[in-house]
Amino acid sequence: MSSMYKIVIIGSGNVAEHLIRAFNLSENSEVVQLYSRNIITGKEISNKCNVPFTNELEEIIEADLYIIAVIDSAINEISTALPFNDRLVVHTSGATNIDVINYKNRQAVFYPLQSFTKGKKIDFSTIPICIETIDKEDCKLLFEIGRSISNTVSQVSSEQRQYLHASAVFVNNFTNHMFHIGKEIAEHHNVDFELLKPLIKETIDKLQHKTPKEAQTGPAVRGDKSTMKKHLKLIPNEKHREIYRLITESIFDTYN
Amino acid sequence: MSSMYKIVIIGSGNVAEHLIRAFNLSENSEVVQLYSRNIITGKEISNKCNVPFTNELEEIIEADLYIIAVIDSAINEISTALPFNDRLVVHTSGATNIDVINYKNRQAVFYPLQSFTKGKKIDFSTIPICIETIDKEDCKLLFEIGRSISNTVSQVSSEQRQYLHASAVFVNNFTNHMFHIGKEIAEHHNVDFELLKPLIKETIDKLQHKTPKEAQTGPAVRGDKSTMKKHLKLIPNEKHREIYRLITESIFDTYN
Repeated sequence: MSSMYKIVIIGSGNVAEHLIRAFNLSENSEVVQLYSRNIITGKEISNKCNVPFTNELEEIIEADLYIIAVIDSAINEISTALPFNDRLVVHTSGATNIDVINYKNRQAVFYPLQSFTKGKKIDFSTIPICIETIDKEDCKLLFEIGRSISNTVSQVSSEQRQYLHASAVFVNNFTNHMFHIGKEIAEHHNVDFELLKPLIKETIDKLQHKTPKEAQTGPAVRGDKSTMKKHLKLIPNEKHREIYRLITESIFDTYN
Repeated sequence: MSSMYKIVIIGSGNVAEHLIRAFNLSENSEVVQLYSRNIITGKEISNKCNVPFTNELEEIIEADLYIIAVIDSAINEISTALPFNDRLVVHTSGATNIDVINYKNRQAVFYPLQSFTKGKKIDFSTIPICIETIDKEDCKLLFEIGRSISNTVSQVSSEQRQYLHASAVFVNNFTNHMFHIGKEIAEHHNVDFELLKPLIKETIDKLQHKTPKEAQTGPAVRGDKSTMKKHLKLIPNEKHREIYRLITESIFDTYN
């Protein structure tokens, strides 16, 4: 039988709440305390998720793991303010180096590679968790804790994690903006965006069997200038036209 | 009981093959003949799908509907070459006006809004079919034939269809290119692209409950310049950096 790992969550944003919910369902990890500077959001999550709350750094209790889930720019400050040493302290940020954690504690990273939305439930078991540690034993421990909520735990260096994060901006943030522009163009002529959703689904389904490079279709890859010209006349927003031109060039360059 | 509609398919590309497969499964429509200029690809599909083939325009038989599924630039020529009048002739193109069909026959459009891949089976019932006709009776007929293979049949004007097609380029072609760039960035540092697939799936799942505008997250919408600077240093390809800058600007503009 594996032991029950005690975890303290620091922060009261989306990631903090989703982590608490995931650990609440886990069989060998539990959140024993939530600390947040913000009393209102902290107490709200504490009540919703049934986890003891404190707003006082000095009241933070002993645990196997401290997870700092705050905005990137606040990680260093809060890790420095922690009133203890030699404990395992991780952050959850994709874009932040491991050494931003104050070195008085055992630095590590526990990065769930997902885009969390407030109020939207998510199946944590499918979310890859990217682990980085200084110490080998800590790595083992974080793998065990990671596996208690996810099927995919990987060791990823600070450098690799930054590439992963930049990549995530393209496949998530920028893709979503393509949907936004597509919706705007369709609705500009009273066409229901719902009609485009099966196409969006297929765009993703294709990735199961093909690389994006193999899956590419459309006027840009064919070099079909007559269709491109027509499209450019239809796009009402100048910046969106610029995006059309630039991505079309980039697709064309990929194959020529 | 509804009657059995007889359909002749003209063309031997992806769309032609996928349409034949869909009609072969339908209960009240059947493909009675396949015509193609290209004997090799025509006979191949004819054999695979068990449909009579001809390469002679004069041998095309009588039917309720003639579906021209060829490249956009060849629609007008083939429709003009058809040796009959007053029959219902449609094209399947998103970017092409209805009047490209020679007016000696009853012009119409039967546009399945999907990206078809050779060899990849697809559930046609989920694909929206966009119908346009000159004649009201033809509209009724195309709705019935459309419903025999799809759950979603909509009347869409030539103008609306062009907007839909431009929109499809963003949500499908450009989205796929975002995946390509994301993969390139990840693999540039030996990070497995598989780690990003749950995030891609979530990007799409969010559209069930939120508009893309509501679902947007990431450094661009936050105006997080420090993360953007880091990302720009990591992207190896200059054109991809340009794309990063431009889409970031466009996202920021959307909210400010």
